[in-house]
Order: sequence, then structure tokens, then C-alpha cells
Amino acid sequence: MPDFTAFKSLVPVRPDDIDMNRHVHNSKYNDYVLAARYDQMERCYGMSMDAFIERGLSWVVRASYIEHKRPLHIGDTAEVETRVEEIEGRSVKVGFLITKEADGKAVAKGWLDYVLVSLENGRPQTIPEDIVAIYSI
Amino acid sequence: MPDFTAFKSLVPVRPDDIDMNRHVHNSKYNDYVLAARYDQMERCYGMSMDAFIERGLSWVVRASYIEHKRPLHIGDTAEVETRVEEIEGRSVKVGFLITKEADGKAVAKGWLDYVLVSLENGRPQTIPEDIVAIYSI
Amino acid sequence: MPDFTAFKSLVPVRPDDIDMNRHVHNSKYNDYVLAARYDQMERCYGMSMDAFIERGLSWVVRASYIEHKRPLHIGDTAEVETRVEEIEGRSVKVGFLITKEADGKAVAKGWLDYVLVSLENGRPQTIPEDIVAIYSI
Amino acid sequence: MPDFTAFKSLVPVRPDDIDMNRHVHNSKYNDYVLAARYDQMERCYGMSMDAFIERGLSWVVRASYIEHKRPLHIGDTAEVETRVEEIEGRSVKVGFLITKEADGKAVAKGWLDYVLVSLENGRPQTIPEDIVAIYSI
Repeated sequence: MPDFTAFKSLVPVRPDDIDMNRHVHNSKYNDYVLAARYDQMERCYGMSMDAFIERGLSWVVRASYIEHKRPLHIGDTAEVETRVEEIEGRSVKVGFLITKEADGKAVAKGWLDYVLVSLENGRPQTIPEDIVAIYSI
Repeated sequence: MPDFTAFKSLVPVRPDDIDMNRHVHNSKYNDYVLAARYDQMERCYGMSMDAFIERGLSWVVRASYIEHKRPLHIGDTAEVETRVEEIEGRSVKVGFLITKEADGKAVAKGWLDYVLVSLENGRPQTIPEDIVAIYSI
Repeated sequence: MPDFTAFKSLVPVRPDDIDMNRHVHNSKYNDYVLAARYDQMERCYGMSMDAFIERGLSWVVRASYIEHKRPLHIGDTAEVETRVEEIEGRSVKVGFLITKEADGKAVAKGWLDYVLVSLENGRPQTIPEDIVAIYSI
Repeated sequence: MPDFTAFKSLVPVRPDDIDMNRHVHNSKYNDYVLAARYDQMERCYGMSMDAFIERGLSWVVRASYIEHKRPLHIGDTAEVETRVEEIEGRSVKVGFLITKEADGKAVAKGWLDYVLVSLENGRPQTIPEDIVAIYSI
């Protein structure tokens, strides 16, 4: 059973993320995780989204799950921890935990199930061995 | 076992919903479901979000799950069907199915688990009997 | 001095457009105008954005101005009227007026200055005669 | 003629800011300026938006103008410089310049005209002397 590394990225809350409830809009947590993955693909795994695109590949979300614990507000910064939970065949399951940077309290947690697709025809692709290796750290 | 009614709302795709993959951004499907619920709360259940707020109540999302089947593109219109799947204690589980209006093909499906909260202190509230009745159609 | 036709599109407010002030977020009015232009390009001028892209062309905003009169709220629908004000060389100036559909009151007005660019190299292009004609109705 | 101080804030581009043209969506530059102002109100002027709200006051945008020079892309960070250009009666005009942090090149520039309003009734208010002083640095 592999034990993959968790990485962290900071995502500051922007005023345009705030909704009528005066906290960060639900959908934005998904965007914070996306921002963290982009950052970590380049900085932590050493293969940026651009590098995937240059190889004619991209990742699409097949399914996702999120649980909300406490909202973030204007002025807060999200700390987004993600970790590869499973990598197999054509898909990678990425778990995430969002905390409020200031106090470390849980904001949301969940997972995303990504499928690797060909940019040419949009079809799912078996993840090449070298990419499995890159993500298996 | 109750069998609740499904309702439908149309949500046209806007150009600002499109992301770098040239289809509707993942997070936006959640926003389409939110738009459909607002529409249906007023039009189908006869109790708008404003009516909840006037009673000092609001709904917050505790958890949600989504599966993506096919993307929507610029010029498409989403047909969003939602249905109360469970209503109990302080929470309502709402299932949804998003299809492309033009051909009826599945775009995404999933559910949201909402909790009723007091606007005054943000704490979860038992759903009052009259609201249970309103949602049990 | 040409006198170009004004066209109208309806854009319903979505809950995710609402910001902490509980009205439509400033930036969204720009997105409503964009949605109206996409609709009108296809429906009123008979040349959709896709048709531009197929010819290797796209429009980019060089400058824009907006004046806010009254905000839109949840449940409202924007009526967005746009009109070509000038078309010359490589640019088109489009004026807009956003009103609230329910009462016709002014919400915002302004203009956008678009430049036609080549998709291949991003450089501004002189607007071809047939496109000038299409936009000069 | 007063000569007010310019302040700078960094705003990292997020993947959800990118549109179908694969650069930052037009409307988002307005949101970057808003983020910079919130940051600077607290950090540079010493009066956060919360402090305005506690006094029953808020700022609304009456008009704005923006000129786009070069787009920002995924992975870029915006450097947003803002400066009070005029403060008089009920309004403040704030000029801005957005550059790409990596090379200092101009991305966009423009201004926003803000009006101080009462939170209670939404009506414009004469800017109190102490707030004029706070903004006149």
C-alpha cells in the first residue's frame, strides 16, 4: 500500500470569492484545490500542467466530494493540503484538506477523481509509467 | 418511504463560465444547481430563499458529491433537475441531474446535503414541521 | 454618420453573481454584456464567435468604461442592449445599456472597445470588409 | 494639488481566473484591483473595510475605466498599484496600474470612482474629515 506525500499551498481569499452569506462561496473551495494542484504539480512534482499539455495530455475531473466544516472569510488565507491517494490505470484520486492558515482549523475536506485524457480526441488514456512515477512520491 | 417530486430549471451557459479547456468550468455546475434550487424554491415549493431569511433561517451546504459525464459548451443550456431525496432532523439531501437541453444527454449528477441554520448564530436548527411539509411534495 | 441597430438580450441573475453586498458583483455586469454580445453575434448579426474562430480571428477588449446606476439583485433579470457605435480599422466600439427587465430602470451603461486579432499570432487585424458589413446593420 | 502615495499588492493568478482565451478573463482584473484595495485599506491606510462597516459605511463603485495592455496567464502574479487620485465630497477616485510581477510589464491601467454610502439606507454620504485624512497620505 503506497504512502504518498502530502503537499501544501497557500491560497489567499479574494473579495470576489465572497458570496451573499459573507463567507467564501461553496464552489470556490473547489477552485482553491485546483489552484493548489497547479502550484504543486510544478513546484512539488516537477511536472506542470503545461508539461502535460505539451505531451498532448490533460486531466479532467470525473467525480468529486467535499465536506464543509467552517467557512473562510475576507482576509483569511486557505492552506490547501493535497495528497495522491490512489493512482491506477487512467485515474488519480487526490485527497485534500483545507484549513484556515491563521489557526489551523479545518475548513473543508474531500477528494477529486481525475482522469488523464488525450487533448487530441478527449479520450481517457492509461497514465504512462513515467507519470505514475512522478506522482508516486 | 416518501417519493418526492423532481423539478426542472433551465440555466443558460454564459461565456464567463468557460475555462481554459473551452468548456464549462467544473465549479460552475455546482452554481447551476444552486441557481436551479433558488428558482425552484420560489416557483415550485412556494417558499423562496428570501422567505427563509425573513424567518431568520438559511441553508448551508454540509457536503456534496458530483460526477461529471460530458461537458457543456458555449451556447448550450443546462437543464437542471433536482429532487429532495431525504428530509430529516436538521438536514435535507437534494439529488440533481444536469442534462444538455438540446439533446437530453447527461452532463453531471450528484447530490447536496444542506443543513438549516439560524441566521442569528449560525447554528443548525431542526427543520420546522411546516417547512418539512413544504419540501415533502 | 452611420446609425447602427441596437439589440437586446436577457441575462438572468444567478445566485453565484451576488457578492457580500447582496447585489450583483460589479465585475459581473461586464460578463452580462459579454453574454449579450455572444448571443447577438449569432442571433442578430448572423456571425457567431465560433465563425470568427473558424476564420482564425477573435475579439479582444482594448478598453472599457462602465457607470453603475442601480444594482441588480437575486431573482432579477438583466436586459442588455448593445449597439455598434463605431467600426473603423481594427476596432469596434460597442455601447451598452443594462436595465432591470421587471421595471426597465437603468442599472448600468458604458462601452467596450474591441480589437480584432489573429488567433495565430495575437496581432491586431484590419477588420475585413465583409465583417464590417455584417456589423454595419 | 495633493500628491497621494501609491501602494502595491501582489495578487497571484488562479486557474479559475483563466477563460476560453487561455489568459486571465477581462472581468478578473477588476477583481484584482478590488483585492488590492482591500489589502491596502487595512495594511497601508490602517482602516479596513470591516472598520468602515462598523461605522455603518461602505464604498460602492459609481464608474470605472480600464485599458488592457497585455494579458496575464496561469502561473503569473499581478502586481497591483493603486493611488488615490482625488478625494472630494462623497467620492474618491482611485487610479490603478497592474503589471506582471515577473517582468514589470504593463498589463492594464485605469481608475475607479467610489462613492461612500450609508449601510442603513444605501444613500451617498459626505466623506467624514477623519476618513479624508486617512486617505490623504
